[in-house]
Amino acid sequence: MSRQFETIRYDVSDNIAMLTLDRPDRLNAYTAQMCDEIIAAFELSDADDDVRAVIVTGEGRAFCAGADLENGAQTFDYAGSDLGGPVRPDGSIDWSHEDVRDSGGKASLRIFESLKPVIGAINGPAVGIGITLTLPMDIRLAANTAKIGFVFARRGIVPEAASHWFLPRIVGISRALEWCETGRLLTAEEALAGGLLRSVHAPEELLPAAYAIAREIADNSAPVSVTLTRQMMWRGLGLSHPMLAHRIDSRAVYARGRAGDAREGVMSFLEKRPAVFPDRVSKDLPDFYPWWEEPGWA
Amino acid sequence: MSRQFETIRYDVSDNIAMLTLDRPDRLNAYTAQMCDEIIAAFELSDADDDVRAVIVTGEGRAFCAGADLENGAQTFDYAGSDLGGPVRPDGSIDWSHEDVRDSGGKASLRIFESLKPVIGAINGPAVGIGITLTLPMDIRLAANTAKIGFVFARRGIVPEAASHWFLPRIVGISRALEWCETGRLLTAEEALAGGLLRSVHAPEELLPAAYAIAREIADNSAPVSVTLTRQMMWRGLGLSHPMLAHRIDSRAVYARGRAGDAREGVMSFLEKRPAVFPDRVSKDLPDFYPWWEEPGWA
Amino acid sequence: MSRQFETIRYDVSDNIAMLTLDRPDRLNAYTAQMCDEIIAAFELSDADDDVRAVIVTGEGRAFCAGADLENGAQTFDYAGSDLGGPVRPDGSIDWSHEDVRDSGGKASLRIFESLKPVIGAINGPAVGIGITLTLPMDIRLAANTAKIGFVFARRGIVPEAASHWFLPRIVGISRALEWCETGRLLTAEEALAGGLLRSVHAPEELLPAAYAIAREIADNSAPVSVTLTRQMMWRGLGLSHPMLAHRIDSRAVYARGRAGDAREGVMSFLEKRPAVFPDRVSKDLPDFYPWWEEPGWA
Repeated sequence: MSRQFETIRYDVSDNIAMLTLDRPDRLNAYTAQMCDEIIAAFELSDADDDVRAVIVTGEGRAFCAGADLENGAQTFDYAGSDLGGPVRPDGSIDWSHEDVRDSGGKASLRIFESLKPVIGAINGPAVGIGITLTLPMDIRLAANTAKIGFVFARRGIVPEAASHWFLPRIVGISRALEWCETGRLLTAEEALAGGLLRSVHAPEELLPAAYAIAREIADNSAPVSVTLTRQMMWRGLGLSHPMLAHRIDSRAVYARGRAGDAREGVMSFLEKRPAVFPDRVSKDLPDFYPWWEEPGWA
Repeated sequence: MSRQFETIRYDVSDNIAMLTLDRPDRLNAYTAQMCDEIIAAFELSDADDDVRAVIVTGEGRAFCAGADLENGAQTFDYAGSDLGGPVRPDGSIDWSHEDVRDSGGKASLRIFESLKPVIGAINGPAVGIGITLTLPMDIRLAANTAKIGFVFARRGIVPEAASHWFLPRIVGISRALEWCETGRLLTAEEALAGGLLRSVHAPEELLPAAYAIAREIADNSAPVSVTLTRQMMWRGLGLSHPMLAHRIDSRAVYARGRAGDAREGVMSFLEKRPAVFPDRVSKDLPDFYPWWEEPGWA
Repeated sequence: MSRQFETIRYDVSDNIAMLTLDRPDRLNAYTAQMCDEIIAAFELSDADDDVRAVIVTGEGRAFCAGADLENGAQTFDYAGSDLGGPVRPDGSIDWSHEDVRDSGGKASLRIFESLKPVIGAINGPAVGIGITLTLPMDIRLAANTAKIGFVFARRGIVPEAASHWFLPRIVGISRALEWCETGRLLTAEEALAGGLLRSVHAPEELLPAAYAIAREIADNSAPVSVTLTRQMMWRGLGLSHPMLAHRIDSRAVYARGRAGDAREGVMSFLEKRPAVFPDRVSKDLPDFYPWWEEPGWA
């Protein structure tokens, strides 16, 4: 399956979806349209049983240079053009107004919800939303030419895209603070040492490395198991006690243990042959899925 | 103190309990009986003031090969043999039925509750429940011959034993996802680099290394302090704000600061001599212990 | 601005505050007075727009040797001298009494609340409260001569200063448990490998390294952005779902994106010149700040 977008490309081949940020003349700078198209692409990958993993990369020499600054000083002044928006007649702001929502967060929360594993292949500079967008991805790899910057404080704004939830959980609170308070550019090696990246590669070896991980998942793991695993692990971070996890994984093992996937998983192992899993994400998620209550905006 | 079990051994010597998974002909594969016996062993170690730390290891060449697969395709079909179990007459499942509970989680939650530090000495392959069982242990060491696999998705099921609470907190969310989504076997060195293991040893040096840590705790630290410390640290992970920790440690310092252990701890330090702590876990936990509300099943 | 204290020194120069623990004849051992003076110093740094970062170090050869043990066996017996304190007439303890509060936690929670980044420059031994006091700091650097000890269990008490919230989040649960259960002294290199320290330096290079980080923040980042970033990151650790972070950072980007800082941040970047940020922490925090509910004592 393939579909035409304007700011990204989305292609599926051999069970792997490739989402490419595609504004190379603007270093793939992020816009409202790109936000919408990223969200739409994840709707496609979620609905498509042929997709077992999603790779996200950038066209050209950058991954994503951050918010497009073509509006200059007005770049982040979302209220400036509002008519009937969050600014009340008395000038105060209705913080719960939908237009207050950060567009980076809309996309990052959509990636967080993905039913399929997401692998970020950071092929070049990733700055601002260019890097916070990758935080809800399962795995991040980078080219050794990539530079990474949480530059928000240098632009007079703050880390967005829900990164104050993701970043300290990924790299630890001390690095998250130093990187965001200084706003300095990091080399790929620094980001690797800090735990932001899984691995760093020569540019021409980046996509093959990302494909190899996606391939390993697609070729060996039961798709329904992978989807449940992804949701469990991310949501496990929000649980206050392991008993709450036990309630969920007990139900999941019980439900999946009776299914065709488990019979095939055990028998293929005992018979030392590749598994051919019968179940599909689109129809075989257990009936207690989703087991969490999703907080809404505002 | 020693007691005879059938699938494990449990021995106490010099203030250290050794729990050995003991089905070497089956690579110490996990069964319902082993689950019950592990839980029973931790009842013994908790109640015994002579036990200052618990080491868990495996007999023979494996640590634990995971769930015993002798039932083949029915291995994880817990409902298959149910009469009056969680399956209702109309075929739907009562997810809160006690029989839905994952047996791996029963054991891992019991280890989580242990009053004494638990050290996993992973002497060989640890796969499935063979590795998730170790996640609530304080410290994991491994022989350099150990292979580790979170293989659930390859068997068509999902990570269990409350591992979606433990694993991302121990190795970070990205590694937890990659390891569980691919299901691939890890070398001891990979697991060490990923933070799952504290250290890796030549096979013959594994148990001495585990004993050395247990010895250091037993010889130097006040037992009541160690028990409180263990409960505080694990439960601190579930608190939303450090003030909630301040409420607890203030009470604990106040209660223990008046006790014989603190007097001995300070005076032995000032007098540069080994401490002989008078207080005991069985009778000297403060009266606000336990300070937490334990969530129940379902 | 400068102010005279008795157990610490506090000086501001070039937008950087230096807080020096100053009882070198007692290895800067911690007392109730030092607790009060640390808290007072952070009131000064918070209120002073000239302060963009705070460095904390120790006078002489130690950073802080822990609680002053001059009272010997009575050191931690806070009830011993109580008249009308938490001990009720019947001998039971009112755990919610204000006098139960651990003085280490009072200071560490105040540092947690700091509006400015805090950098710990650990110039020598840091033991007990000498190290737990540093856990709410953004960044910790140490001299290669520093020894670090979470020695509480060896003194018959427990880790305090809310460290069972901070420590497992900084170094992981396994290291937190091993370090606190054994109570052993760590070298600076061990603490670095364990993630407690950002970097280790020759003694004469420690303060320059701390200043360099503070300088980078002060010279490049918008002060209001830095304050918001610090509060967001620390408090993000207590949130159960990234949507809750999205609610906050959306408001913050919206509020700050309209402000002078954002206009200057973008334009200075586009014009390749240093930014001169107009906004100030004392008057330009957004009107939804603070957005969290602060839990109180008891």
